[in-house]
Amino acid sequence: MMTEQGQHRVVIVGAGFGGKYAARALRRADARVTILNGTNHHVFEPLIYQVATGLLSPGEVATPVREFFRGQRNTEVLQGWVTDVDVQSRTVTATGADGTPYQVPYDTLIMAAGAGQSYFGNDRFAEFAPGLKSIDDAVELRARIFSAFEMAELETDPAAAERWLTFVVVGAGPTGVELAGQLAEIARRTLPGEYRRIDPSKARIVLVDAVDRVLPTFSAQSSAAAEKRLRRIGVEVRLGTKVVDIDATGVTVETSAGTERLAAMTKIWSAGVAAAPLARRLAEATGAPADRAGRIQVNPDLTVPGHPEIFVIGDLMSLDRLPGVAQVSIQSGGYVGRTIRDRLAGKPAGRPFHYFDKGNIATVARFSAVADLRGLRLSGLAGWLLWLGVHWAYLPRGRNRASSLIRWAVAFLGRRRPERAVTSRQINARAALGQATATEAAAPPPVPVSS
Amino acid sequence: MMTEQGQHRVVIVGAGFGGKYAARALRRADARVTILNGTNHHVFEPLIYQVATGLLSPGEVATPVREFFRGQRNTEVLQGWVTDVDVQSRTVTATGADGTPYQVPYDTLIMAAGAGQSYFGNDRFAEFAPGLKSIDDAVELRARIFSAFEMAELETDPAAAERWLTFVVVGAGPTGVELAGQLAEIARRTLPGEYRRIDPSKARIVLVDAVDRVLPTFSAQSSAAAEKRLRRIGVEVRLGTKVVDIDATGVTVETSAGTERLAAMTKIWSAGVAAAPLARRLAEATGAPADRAGRIQVNPDLTVPGHPEIFVIGDLMSLDRLPGVAQVSIQSGGYVGRTIRDRLAGKPAGRPFHYFDKGNIATVARFSAVADLRGLRLSGLAGWLLWLGVHWAYLPRGRNRASSLIRWAVAFLGRRRPERAVTSRQINARAALGQATATEAAAPPPVPVSS
Repeated sequence: MMTEQGQHRVVIVGAGFGGKYAARALRRADARVTILNGTNHHVFEPLIYQVATGLLSPGEVATPVREFFRGQRNTEVLQGWVTDVDVQSRTVTATGADGTPYQVPYDTLIMAAGAGQSYFGNDRFAEFAPGLKSIDDAVELRARIFSAFEMAELETDPAAAERWLTFVVVGAGPTGVELAGQLAEIARRTLPGEYRRIDPSKARIVLVDAVDRVLPTFSAQSSAAAEKRLRRIGVEVRLGTKVVDIDATGVTVETSAGTERLAAMTKIWSAGVAAAPLARRLAEATGAPADRAGRIQVNPDLTVPGHPEIFVIGDLMSLDRLPGVAQVSIQSGGYVGRTIRDRLAGKPAGRPFHYFDKGNIATVARFSAVADLRGLRLSGLAGWLLWLGVHWAYLPRGRNRASSLIRWAVAFLGRRRPERAVTSRQINARAALGQATATEAAAPPPVPVSS
Repeated sequence: MMTEQGQHRVVIVGAGFGGKYAARALRRADARVTILNGTNHHVFEPLIYQVATGLLSPGEVATPVREFFRGQRNTEVLQGWVTDVDVQSRTVTATGADGTPYQVPYDTLIMAAGAGQSYFGNDRFAEFAPGLKSIDDAVELRARIFSAFEMAELETDPAAAERWLTFVVVGAGPTGVELAGQLAEIARRTLPGEYRRIDPSKARIVLVDAVDRVLPTFSAQSSAAAEKRLRRIGVEVRLGTKVVDIDATGVTVETSAGTERLAAMTKIWSAGVAAAPLARRLAEATGAPADRAGRIQVNPDLTVPGHPEIFVIGDLMSLDRLPGVAQVSIQSGGYVGRTIRDRLAGKPAGRPFHYFDKGNIATVARFSAVADLRGLRLSGLAGWLLWLGVHWAYLPRGRNRASSLIRWAVAFLGRRRPERAVTSRQINARAALGQATATEAAAPPPVPVSS
């Protein structure tokens, strides 16, 4: 064992932005730090949509956690899905890559397990409209997007081909806006010229949200600029439009004018998030209240009421109606790491956590983004250059940063997308699903494509 | 439809090296060319092992087929697994991405479906020792390799940890040699410093083959140089050693000294190939003889006996004991494309196919490769520079070539591997497998890792 017995043990559950910045802030703390993460990588979530749309490779947004902490000698990384927390014995239970459970004791616990997709009680939507929270999601979505054009090319029934060429994005927050913009670029810039029977540029991209503007957390001015830009690149923006059903072949929406059916084979869900299931276990164990999204309500110092040894950060905490964005995770992680370091050094408790809102930024298309900074609003190219600078600054240093920049240069100046491979396993899984849903979806009978 | 009815239709089954070069040679032919491929990508097979070992991303070795043929207007690409050939009606049957079958008629057929892994009748080995023929294989193998170190870090039983840190590569051809070399570099260069409980550099890498030298298709001199280099970087080379059984926890081998058990959780099969199952269907339909690996015996002009309208190329053809290497596929594809083009132009039949052996090349470690060219033998750095030049020349033009070069530069000069992400879905699949095999493998009971 690397550290002496008896040293204070800090266990961090999750290596997203919150867990990573918390561990970083503990690098000089008099503690033995253990990071537990279900996979071997930290995901740079703001760029996952670029994996889903073939711009970046998984490795460019998913960096090995243990590589990052290689030189931080008081910290170890263990692969494990945390399934339970025993607050009496101060032990977490995790399962390793082969499914074997193991226990890790803690003196101080940082819960940073993050959030997953929420379908607001309509979990049956998940199969037809996957979300975009993990590398698995991104790779699955990428397969659906690029396969849809392949299927359209094979179709002889024009209505069926049109269904394959219709993409519905549910939720007009940053991820939904960025995805819709990317889909428009795939259809109008990347794929034209590659097909002989269909015209990919005719693809229909529909962005649906029940609220009355895109990017509702941005300023009204930025929302309007983003919407205008989306319409200009050919995205159908359908606001005040509520999704009431999703199935294999389309989406049923409700507007003030009544109910409407959007026939679409590819649907993407970016409408809601909910705290990781572990939050409920923690709420039960500690009696801490949770909000509607399952997040734990924390004290001003981000501890759980009655448990000064348990901190909850990022998307898992409910505090002052803070949004579920990377900056909240980064700042709460850093705050908690520093708090614990100071505690162990015997310093008095510092100020409560204060979120410094650096602003919002979202890309709409290449060379076009909207940004709301403190008092400054940028859109178009100026916003996009800012987006580039910010992501450059926050991307992990090293070769991924360099290779991402090259990928972006090639993609933004050219038309190609380097990561389009859909594998046999993905195709077989989809084919099995397609055959299972073919009957209920009343799909047209197989027709030979060649005359 | 892009071309007039009645034009000669050439159907190419498979977009590996053979199919791709055949289609390319038909670019000015008076024919309508249809390429059918099961996935959407051409795989640059000689570099798949670099995907399996975290150096390159899938998109860097898997390039979209239709992007390549974008500007070749007489050629269309359809996604389809060809399941059958009707030589009477001259029609192939394929299934698209949703599993729906469709037919494509041909006037001339080029069969280029390639080869898959062969376990020489021991198909039960496949689950425990996957091969390396597709992107799926590479991504699966990558998950097994990097997860093995994670599992070792969690083990408290030293014998179990040692099993996780033992890697057995079966088959000492180019793929096996390159994999073993990469595994040694992962263990000795990439991972040291990242773990706190295990020493990754202590990992044991065993390369097993029944024959008496590595790279048996190379010159004796090159084989000896490669073996020496492998031993120097810490690979255990076990020649004259036959694999008689593989299960979840190890490999049983047989040597002149008797039977031995190698305890190893990670096994990789690179020992044999067999023609795609479609070859058997074609042999049945045409009465053409097939060899032991299921390959079709062809005429000197690569047509099937009695069927001048059907060509068989690459790993699917049996001719003059030619090896299953990329150059045979490339050259036979080009030959067949030119033959068909000339036939359609009314020219008399040309010479039979003649394979021009450009030589063999295999990397052993960074800055070290062995190469047998016509009369020239290189090893070490000289061989490696040649390897770099050859792969640079054959890699598809464009951004993948540039990004691969950057990845290589970073990997060869530094120690990192940028594509190490093992996803939740992969971990869950492995956990399910692990639990299923735990009993029969008599795995040790779960033990808490922390004291």
